[in-house]
Amino acid sequence: MNGEAYEKQPSTTFNRLKKRGTYDAEKIHNIINTTSVVHVSFSPLPGDRYPIILPMIGRIGHYPPSAESAPSCYLHGHVSSRLMKLGVAGGLPVCVAATKVDGFQLSLTPFSHSYNYRSAIIQGMASVVEDKAEKLWAMELMTDSVIPGRWANTRTPPDGGELQSTHVLKIDIQAASAKINANQAHDDKKDMRKEELLDRVWTGVVPVYETFGEPIPSAYNRVENVPSYIADFIRNENVNAEEHAVGGARTESH
Amino acid sequence: MNGEAYEKQPSTTFNRLKKRGTYDAEKIHNIINTTSVVHVSFSPLPGDRYPIILPMIGRIGHYPPSAESAPSCYLHGHVSSRLMKLGVAGGLPVCVAATKVDGFQLSLTPFSHSYNYRSAIIQGMASVVEDKAEKLWAMELMTDSVIPGRWANTRTPPDGGELQSTHVLKIDIQAASAKINANQAHDDKKDMRKEELLDRVWTGVVPVYETFGEPIPSAYNRVENVPSYIADFIRNENVNAEEHAVGGARTESH
Repeated sequence: MNGEAYEKQPSTTFNRLKKRGTYDAEKIHNIINTTSVVHVSFSPLPGDRYPIILPMIGRIGHYPPSAESAPSCYLHGHVSSRLMKLGVAGGLPVCVAATKVDGFQLSLTPFSHSYNYRSAIIQGMASVVEDKAEKLWAMELMTDSVIPGRWANTRTPPDGGELQSTHVLKIDIQAASAKINANQAHDDKKDMRKEELLDRVWTGVVPVYETFGEPIPSAYNRVENVPSYIADFIRNENVNAEEHAVGGARTESH
Repeated sequence: MNGEAYEKQPSTTFNRLKKRGTYDAEKIHNIINTTSVVHVSFSPLPGDRYPIILPMIGRIGHYPPSAESAPSCYLHGHVSSRLMKLGVAGGLPVCVAATKVDGFQLSLTPFSHSYNYRSAIIQGMASVVEDKAEKLWAMELMTDSVIPGRWANTRTPPDGGELQSTHVLKIDIQAASAKINANQAHDDKKDMRKEELLDRVWTGVVPVYETFGEPIPSAYNRVENVPSYIADFIRNENVNAEEHAVGGARTESH
């Protein structure tokens, strides 16, 4: 990492559509930290032919908590899971990907169709966090990444048995990049000249965004009203997500 | 594949939370085919330490088109992309993952928090489709997987240059599995006995679902009304997605 951006590595050099690519750390972190589920790839065994992918919660954080600390990506899981066992056995090379689909670009011909999206990947070595203070801090980071404030509003900290059965993995980031596409539909000149086609085919963008629905209480819930830290978060996220998806379709950067 | 289910392989043997796991082909295919973007993992070079992950459109199809043909997973991309070049060079071992987040389960303590989700993976060898009829069929499959009927309502088939610059990859499925979690929040007995906790912490599910927004026409669009094959699809998908997310939270299978 070099200041505010990750350094270009052979694995993260953009081969195509370079203007969509970025190494900007804030953009990369933001995509990962606002994605409900990231995908983590690794080789389950040295001799295995195929990689495997697990869907997980993944969050970028700075520890000790300060902007000067190097950013790492944190994951967590049960100690008996395959990934956690490999993490205990030593540094495990992983790739983490986070992708948000923001819209479908519908053009005159399928060849020009595209998605509006934001996608980020990081590559690095994953190892188990042994320091108890960092482990607790990372657990709070991951809980609050789902609903901010949830950690403080539940039974915390975890007890001894819970801490023993959960591992936190920390990924030392070796390479990172993102691609962002936010545009209206576009077409090649050869198709834009066809009057019949322009008269017949609807072109534009279908915005796509994640929505959080009305919370549904459990059978044993006793708190009558949804607390404001949950209700406000849902309301704000829904507005932001829709605005982002619609805004991307109104951008004209071609 | 064995009838309606994939055979258990070492890489797809469930280690934890076995009751969420399934090898059912229809369920696995359905998760992949209703996910806007799948994640494809592979080793970019034999000596590379880290795997890489690309977000792509991926669809399961049967070719020749008949339920008796073996299912394969199709991807597509520009001929100059890294994955397509590797696919041309011979069979490439890949893993494809598709995940849908359906809700956040909020319990009394972070340790018991969970997601409602549907996730599927396949592993197999990817190679370039050389047969022109299958290639065109797969392109239509992928276009119509975004908006059904789009292929027939645009300028098709692709011309010679478009066909030459696009590769279709076909993955011969060697292993496949899925995990599905659809539940209300739950807690351990030790927390359910704490009156103070039950009085203080809101428990339940926040449904999560993908929404398609109002289509936004391009500057060169001349078709005044959004065609019904698009408008109806959006309306139906939005109703289904919300119902699925809410329905999962109302299920009590503990």
